[in-house]
Amino acid sequence: MGRIVCAGLGPGDPDLMSVRSDRAIRSAAHVAYFRKKGRPGQARQIVEGMLGAGVVEYPMEYPVTTELPFDSPEYIHCLATFYDAWAARLVALAQTQEVLVLCEGDPFFYGSFMHLYSRLQGRAQVDVIPGIPGMVGCWSATQTPMTWGDDVMTVLMGTLPDAELQRHMQTADALVIMKTGRNLPRIRRALQATGRLEQAWLVERGTMPGQSVLPLAQVDGNDCPYFAIVLVHGQGRRPEVQE
Amino acid sequence: MGRIVCAGLGPGDPDLMSVRSDRAIRSAAHVAYFRKKGRPGQARQIVEGMLGAGVVEYPMEYPVTTELPFDSPEYIHCLATFYDAWAARLVALAQTQEVLVLCEGDPFFYGSFMHLYSRLQGRAQVDVIPGIPGMVGCWSATQTPMTWGDDVMTVLMGTLPDAELQRHMQTADALVIMKTGRNLPRIRRALQATGRLEQAWLVERGTMPGQSVLPLAQVDGNDCPYFAIVLVHGQGRRPEVQE
Repeated sequence: MGRIVCAGLGPGDPDLMSVRSDRAIRSAAHVAYFRKKGRPGQARQIVEGMLGAGVVEYPMEYPVTTELPFDSPEYIHCLATFYDAWAARLVALAQTQEVLVLCEGDPFFYGSFMHLYSRLQGRAQVDVIPGIPGMVGCWSATQTPMTWGDDVMTVLMGTLPDAELQRHMQTADALVIMKTGRNLPRIRRALQATGRLEQAWLVERGTMPGQSVLPLAQVDGNDCPYFAIVLVHGQGRRPEVQE
Repeated sequence: MGRIVCAGLGPGDPDLMSVRSDRAIRSAAHVAYFRKKGRPGQARQIVEGMLGAGVVEYPMEYPVTTELPFDSPEYIHCLATFYDAWAARLVALAQTQEVLVLCEGDPFFYGSFMHLYSRLQGRAQVDVIPGIPGMVGCWSATQTPMTWGDDVMTVLMGTLPDAELQRHMQTADALVIMKTGRNLPRIRRALQATGRLEQAWLVERGTMPGQSVLPLAQVDGNDCPYFAIVLVHGQGRRPEVQE
């Protein structure tokens, strides 16, 4: 009787994955990971050079990317069928083998693996190894403390409506904004409207080769990689007294 | 010429620290860590059995804990003097040695090390190794995805005023509440007032021996360890369509 193990890979630098994930990856015989069609896949690239000889790889290729609107019934149906099929295949494999699924960052924090995880409940033993979330790698890259004291930190998706982005930008001390990409102009406007733009940073490929850390106000252009993260650091709020 | 390295230790299980922190700890000759007077110290306990023979240890003992109100000028002055003195001592050591400072979780995420970090700027080379934040270890312990889709996640300190706790509990999908301890009754009331109590979990010693994961509504008593964390999981918000 096998099981399914999901290894959180951390923010991208292989040296920043946990000792447990590192060990699981080096000893795995069956390794599955998501990727876009025709791409090597970010998760697979992180473990390059770590897999043993003779490992069997299972690239789980997304059936669609941007051809369909992400909130259309067709898109949702297409993805659900894709996750259903891979869940069934992993369950079958786990009857006799241990299968390792790779997942960037921390699997339980906005991870694609959760769409499999929910489908695997009661059908196979599933263990999840946590990882350093991508946002932690990004604020490390800024070499500046992210939160201290009584700072409130809010994590937002750039896909949220403008009014909601602004409401949270007004009430939180520290901000993390993910799913940037084409939403960057809207994110920038919301930060401007709430007086936070001057403190904002855009971090691309945090902890990875080609890492870029720039003040958002100095970034030209209306686009950035979808996985780039915008950060506003907390200032160390104290309820009563200032240091 | 030496340097100061701060190693993030992750949530508590030594197997969950990064490969880089693990290596730094096993090869360190000088190791500093915070602890309360008369206690072994959480950071020091995590690395038990990992330190080399002949390592020199520098326990940085907090001069006060609960004797003074944390927002009193005396408390702030006392702690500032303490951080000043240790920053000076580490700078002197780093002239000739590499010094490793241990820090639970991720050093830039509500970490005590930041009070040294700000004082070390321009006086020594300082490198910080990120770690899995304690909250990630706690939500892993619940074996339930924390955030997906367009969930908004907010991290709150239990020390915040009731009105502010409630405002964020109303507007965020996923919640992390730290600095619980004696604030637990206020946190529970705020969750109740905002209809979130039934979905809340109390996690103590996440990923460590003695780990406890309980629905908060079933927890009696008005107190818990200061580092216990309250979690409310996101439900995977989608802007338009439900799956």
